[in-house]
Amino acid sequence: MIDQLVTPDLEELLEKGDFATVIKFLDELHPAEAAEVLSNLPIEHIKPLLLGFDEQKRADVFCELPNRSQIELSSLFEKQELVAIINGLSPDDQADLFKILPTETSDRVLPEVENRAAIETLASYPEGTAGSIMTTEFLAFPATITVKEAIQRIRREGANKESIYTIFLVDPQKRLIGLCSLGDIVLADPEAQLCELAEPEQTTSIKASATREEVVYQVKRFDLVALPVVDDSGRLLGIITHDDVIDVIEQERTEDFERFMAITGKHEDVSYLKIPAWRQFLHRVPWLIILAVVGLVSGAILQHFESALVNLVILAFYMPMLADTGGNTGSQSATVVVRALALKEIQPKHVFKVLWKELKIALMLGAALSLLAFMRVLLGASGAALPGGLHIEQVAFAISVALGLQVISATIIGALLPLLAAACKLDPALIASPAITTVVDITGLFLYFSIARALLYI
Amino acid sequence: MIDQLVTPDLEELLEKGDFATVIKFLDELHPAEAAEVLSNLPIEHIKPLLLGFDEQKRADVFCELPNRSQIELSSLFEKQELVAIINGLSPDDQADLFKILPTETSDRVLPEVENRAAIETLASYPEGTAGSIMTTEFLAFPATITVKEAIQRIRREGANKESIYTIFLVDPQKRLIGLCSLGDIVLADPEAQLCELAEPEQTTSIKASATREEVVYQVKRFDLVALPVVDDSGRLLGIITHDDVIDVIEQERTEDFERFMAITGKHEDVSYLKIPAWRQFLHRVPWLIILAVVGLVSGAILQHFESALVNLVILAFYMPMLADTGGNTGSQSATVVVRALALKEIQPKHVFKVLWKELKIALMLGAALSLLAFMRVLLGASGAALPGGLHIEQVAFAISVALGLQVISATIIGALLPLLAAACKLDPALIASPAITTVVDITGLFLYFSIARALLYI
Repeated sequence: MIDQLVTPDLEELLEKGDFATVIKFLDELHPAEAAEVLSNLPIEHIKPLLLGFDEQKRADVFCELPNRSQIELSSLFEKQELVAIINGLSPDDQADLFKILPTETSDRVLPEVENRAAIETLASYPEGTAGSIMTTEFLAFPATITVKEAIQRIRREGANKESIYTIFLVDPQKRLIGLCSLGDIVLADPEAQLCELAEPEQTTSIKASATREEVVYQVKRFDLVALPVVDDSGRLLGIITHDDVIDVIEQERTEDFERFMAITGKHEDVSYLKIPAWRQFLHRVPWLIILAVVGLVSGAILQHFESALVNLVILAFYMPMLADTGGNTGSQSATVVVRALALKEIQPKHVFKVLWKELKIALMLGAALSLLAFMRVLLGASGAALPGGLHIEQVAFAISVALGLQVISATIIGALLPLLAAACKLDPALIASPAITTVVDITGLFLYFSIARALLYI
Repeated sequence: MIDQLVTPDLEELLEKGDFATVIKFLDELHPAEAAEVLSNLPIEHIKPLLLGFDEQKRADVFCELPNRSQIELSSLFEKQELVAIINGLSPDDQADLFKILPTETSDRVLPEVENRAAIETLASYPEGTAGSIMTTEFLAFPATITVKEAIQRIRREGANKESIYTIFLVDPQKRLIGLCSLGDIVLADPEAQLCELAEPEQTTSIKASATREEVVYQVKRFDLVALPVVDDSGRLLGIITHDDVIDVIEQERTEDFERFMAITGKHEDVSYLKIPAWRQFLHRVPWLIILAVVGLVSGAILQHFESALVNLVILAFYMPMLADTGGNTGSQSATVVVRALALKEIQPKHVFKVLWKELKIALMLGAALSLLAFMRVLLGASGAALPGGLHIEQVAFAISVALGLQVISATIIGALLPLLAAACKLDPALIASPAITTVVDITGLFLYFSIARALLYI
């Protein structure tokens, strides 16, 4: 966390007007570190500091700044300064930037930017698709050239390419037919043809319209440094590099996690402490309101069983344990199913296999927890007065049966809801754990009082 | 999911004894795909199929099999067959294998394996450290050699190296002093010295004792293809490659997620459907028991307030909403704080900043939900009979005040517990969401009835 260590010192220097020292210090840092430090400074200081770097470093650091700073800076820079920075970015970063810039700014600079066509193509892919993550900078050669020619062409064309680790082999129609790594080429006989080095079974590619999840799955499965992206006829459009995949994984996992805990909206790219409280409020409040309203059904059920509750108030004492245990078991099975779906270990068509497995687990959990509840009621409620004729053993039995059934139904509901979401082509993580808790609260209370009525005649 | 499509056909062929066709089919697949298909077949079929491949493919496919199959196979293979497979693995995979093999098997084969010393060193790093993920196959050259010499050495030494994308520059004491990418070398003037290509500010390294989380953080931050691992005096010990980092991220995130949902134990490397139900039961039951026992405190609180409950049974109707809303808001703030800690956006020392931010969010959430509860009680309970002198507005007011305070306390507790865990050097995700739900249930019930008593004189 270099930024927190130096920020006060840098602010002091900047107040004294000593920009040169700060620029010199930042210039020695990695662009990612320099951007971290800069993002803590006031925006009017960032501009002159960025202008103090050489052109390439300026673009590299700008690229690592949070979106919010990029937007603010783009309105502070002169048109030509901004165009120079944009020309220094790789095509995928250029496209990402144009997606967030205000229309007036992009209209102003886009005509001046070098590879406008590529940017507009990249920006046209919908958010979350393989096309929207790829870069158009890659090396693609005919499969028939020799290793020696390839090295010459790499040396001539390679300097601007984001990833030259993988060389793609294409036919005359630019269709992807194979790939070889830069390592293979360096290690090979200079007179060999590239097609001799290619390992065709390893040529995995992905359609531009594929989802981010599929990108992650392919890269993980085949340990790729760069995943080629093709159109419907197999023509090579771009590549997705390993570092972009790592970013995608982290963002995916954070969003899944937050969504599962009933936090809505896209995970923001700024750090927790920098997101205003009201925006966090807006991400959290929708589900809370919905669930609070749905949760009132529990109240209606209690109202319905009011007489049972008043007659046998001991039932109320075990309501929280019943509700919590149901929520916990339901959330556990939902968690496991959501992860297994995300890792492509299961698919919606496996619903019966999953339910059968969860039923076996639920029976074991239900048995263990019922036993616990039975003993607890017997031991804890020895002094309680019971209405005429009822024995504490009967009450303990009814409560433990209800808890066992609650555990089983909650586990099944928790496993079923994400599978249903996936079958409807929705993100399984949309079935948030709090939603499951609320649902099994309702089913649980209904079970609890129905069983109590049936077994205890109240 | 190629495995599910072909498994029945392959099983038919194998029953007819036609191993040759199956081997030919598998040989054309990527090792990861071949392993996926094999892992669905009975273990006694896997052995002859593996032996049908050439030595390198056999090792590559074996490496991709789930741990359980590797262990079973290792006892089926002849000693020399197993040694040949192990010699074909990269050092980090060798070390991983010896960590899971039964002692008798490893005692039998280890003396015969080629680079025994490297394996023993790698296996000696504790699970979860950078040392335990790294491989010892890398290229390290003196900084003073020329590009031309480097290419010659890469061609001579590179064929067995897991990653030749990054060339590490070392001083005569083998201390890491810089790095350059294979791309830089291919693009550079052949007579230039390697040290001229190196970008020293980009030479990030990590200690062998560092945690997996730190590895992920460094690789993500600096977009590295390979992260060098050094000892305390800066000597280069090994490298961690991008594909291993992706695996580590996925495992980390799954474990964090599961732990946060109160599922204990290490995430297993086999897919969901293949883990026996009783092992899943063992992962889930510990927290459930603990929380069910702790949850009984809620019962004791209700017992304490029994008279209030019996006098004003309407209070019981809103208990589930109060409990659920508290659990939800507490889990949300815990989720956000756990993720921010995992992404290193905050540290335990930021506790007051975090609490201040969560307090602001909680005040907004509390206000919104209190208003909702107030209106709901007024509208819903119009017909309810209240004990002498009480107006429904008073009850609605008491319930909404209690709900507001419950939201605020739950949000603060949810944010505080993971920070406390991190301050004690524990994994923040250990503070499971169900644990927070149970804790805020207890505090919430206490608040609810205390406020009801104070405001309604019951």
